[in-house]
Amino acid sequence: MVDVTDKPITKRTARATATLITRPDVIALLVAGNLPKGEALATARIAGIMGAKQTSALIPLCHPLPLSGATVDFDTRDDRVIIETSVKTTGVTGVEMEALTAASIAALTLYDMIKAVDKHAQITDLRVLAKTGGKSGDWVHE
Amino acid sequence: MVDVTDKPITKRTARATATLITRPDVIALLVAGNLPKGEALATARIAGIMGAKQTSALIPLCHPLPLSGATVDFDTRDDRVIIETSVKTTGVTGVEMEALTAASIAALTLYDMIKAVDKHAQITDLRVLAKTGGKSGDWVHE
Amino acid sequence: MVDVTDKPITKRTARATATLITRPDVIALLVAGNLPKGEALATARIAGIMGAKQTSALIPLCHPLPLSGATVDFDTRDDRVIIETSVKTTGVTGVEMEALTAASIAALTLYDMIKAVDKHAQITDLRVLAKTGGKSGDWVHE
Amino acid sequence: MVDVTDKPITKRTARATATLITRPDVIALLVAGNLPKGEALATARIAGIMGAKQTSALIPLCHPLPLSGATVDFDTRDDRVIIETSVKTTGVTGVEMEALTAASIAALTLYDMIKAVDKHAQITDLRVLAKTGGKSGDWVHE
Amino acid sequence: MVDVTDKPITKRTARATATLITRPDVIALLVAGNLPKGEALATARIAGIMGAKQTSALIPLCHPLPLSGATVDFDTRDDRVIIETSVKTTGVTGVEMEALTAASIAALTLYDMIKAVDKHAQITDLRVLAKTGGKSGDWVHE
Amino acid sequence: MVDVTDKPITKRTARATATLITRPDVIALLVAGNLPKGEALATARIAGIMGAKQTSALIPLCHPLPLSGATVDFDTRDDRVIIETSVKTTGVTGVEMEALTAASIAALTLYDMIKAVDKHAQITDLRVLAKTGGKSGDWVHE
Repeated sequence: MVDVTDKPITKRTARATATLITRPDVIALLVAGNLPKGEALATARIAGIMGAKQTSALIPLCHPLPLSGATVDFDTRDDRVIIETSVKTTGVTGVEMEALTAASIAALTLYDMIKAVDKHAQITDLRVLAKTGGKSGDWVHE
Repeated sequence: MVDVTDKPITKRTARATATLITRPDVIALLVAGNLPKGEALATARIAGIMGAKQTSALIPLCHPLPLSGATVDFDTRDDRVIIETSVKTTGVTGVEMEALTAASIAALTLYDMIKAVDKHAQITDLRVLAKTGGKSGDWVHE
Repeated sequence: MVDVTDKPITKRTARATATLITRPDVIALLVAGNLPKGEALATARIAGIMGAKQTSALIPLCHPLPLSGATVDFDTRDDRVIIETSVKTTGVTGVEMEALTAASIAALTLYDMIKAVDKHAQITDLRVLAKTGGKSGDWVHE
Repeated sequence: MVDVTDKPITKRTARATATLITRPDVIALLVAGNLPKGEALATARIAGIMGAKQTSALIPLCHPLPLSGATVDFDTRDDRVIIETSVKTTGVTGVEMEALTAASIAALTLYDMIKAVDKHAQITDLRVLAKTGGKSGDWVHE
Repeated sequence: MVDVTDKPITKRTARATATLITRPDVIALLVAGNLPKGEALATARIAGIMGAKQTSALIPLCHPLPLSGATVDFDTRDDRVIIETSVKTTGVTGVEMEALTAASIAALTLYDMIKAVDKHAQITDLRVLAKTGGKSGDWVHE
Repeated sequence: MVDVTDKPITKRTARATATLITRPDVIALLVAGNLPKGEALATARIAGIMGAKQTSALIPLCHPLPLSGATVDFDTRDDRVIIETSVKTTGVTGVEMEALTAASIAALTLYDMIKAVDKHAQITDLRVLAKTGGKSGDWVHE
């Protein structure tokens, strides 16, 4: 695990996204709350937030960070759900991995909620959208 | 968590995949073992296998299953790494989520290993390839 | 950890309960979905189910068991929320501790969701309601 | 998870309590160290302290905090054990949830230690006793 | 993780040992219960048992196993503590790693309890004593 | 868990070691990458680093610390592997337990990788080599 002892403690944020691609009839079930396993979006939100807090236990070389905020939001489209996450910390390294892990676990949870009705769903476009804080400066994914 | 008490215990397998898209020069560093954080593929393999074992702790409605095998393999292409995972159990529910979680954590770990040299990498095409065992029968993703 | 190697594997269930006591105006906020931290019951349900799966990691002498089902339900009354949990396994020991842990974590999560508006809430009446399976036979708490 | 990035870092403490109600003959076994599963109070103390450290992994919207102290004490009465916990941190949010989680896990561990001799035990009066530090000021439960 | 899907389920046991070497005056404090951090042996016993249950989460290629029993015992000598652990399962692979992990975590916990008075303690002779069950047959370390 | 609220936050490091004793032919297989379970040293390195991050969850009275660096290195000798770990933090307590836990988990992982070819391996000489930072001052094990 890279030595970050001498890096300054700054406020840092990262936003990430992931997309679950399924079928329109599955989205209809999801929006209506009629999936066999229940409330898909609320469950995926909680799983994503809890997943963010497990990042340093899951990703071998990630430093543990005291997360000061984490959100998971959903944009439900015709045949897909777009997940967007935001994570904040005051620490020595960035929180891109935490934002990506939140998006990934939220997407996997949605997959789990719909897999009884769509076993061909897939998760795509998992990437960092933007970050602020730290030596490398702020940036936004174009 | 859906009641699976009365489902029969059978041998079950699942295979899943994910793809990390980066740049050819990053793939060259990765293959040569010259990434700043070290041995990327070995680290991602271990992370993926350990991630598979944490599936029921990460995905809220997943049943805990006694995994009897898990593998994570990599196919390094020009500008990407294709991850393929395989998970086995003898249990009452399938292991698609475990195979997907292994692929997802392995992909996130690769992202973490290369993010110092490519902050625009993305993970795509995370899906189940095939499963065997269980009531719904065997299938292969076409 | 007591040796249960030679106990027979049977289907086992347990039901437990806990009660969170607060104020009527807090219950009104909770039912209307107007608590500052969001969807209290959905969050507590997920936390309770995930907590059930962590029982053997939390309670030192609890045996790990392959849970085959877990539910957490809520009965919202004037000044309180009554939580009822149900856990199932096919294993060598009972699942009372899992049902109690689910009820306890669900109740703590509700407390966390309302503590900004009621710091005097309390959790009471955490107990096993009924169990089936195992040598000691079925029983229901009177 | 609520954004606490801009809250000041201060010393914070919280004390919580829980009560396990059982029978006098069970308390006699517990005090004499004659319970079938062994040293109940020492086991519950350790479980409570370890549980406090898992709070942010168990309660979905709890922020991870660097705990700087945690104690679990017991007051053994005629037919009950009163548990009192104390947790400290230097951080941006309070430690009420950590103190409550410690009390809850300690109480569940005691229940587990005595359940072979008393399946009708119950846990009651789980609440915060006092807190110091933070914007909302110090308070003591009356 | 090696594929053990087709291995037969049998009763399996393993015993392991570890030794913590310190000074006679430290052993005197430990036996008298006068160490600054409190009850060393009870704490180490619980930590060892809980550690056994975390083996498959800690050792990357270990299969998860439903432990049916685990004990940690101590033999206090003039200048050392000899730890002996025993673990049982009914499963497809042996429990040597679980017995070793229990011994290791118990020894580390003892080290943690005494390190304020002896920073030169060391842990030695961590090994498997005996195993039963499985294809390779029973054996005892000579 | 001892109250360290008022201890100053300083940079702290610790180095620890452990030795796995096996046979020369096993070391030959390990160095050649011909062990049945695969890449032993890379797997043990990752396991050790991940283990360091779990220290406060494994050792009951250890405070959680934000690790800012962790390394695990190996020196392969004729009939043994010498493991050396280094852990850093900026915090209120030392990281000896984290360095020892990393060494211990790395050694156990090596044992797991070779146990199919050497069931008589043992782990010895697990101890702290040096520490810096904190009230008790720097020291090196002679």
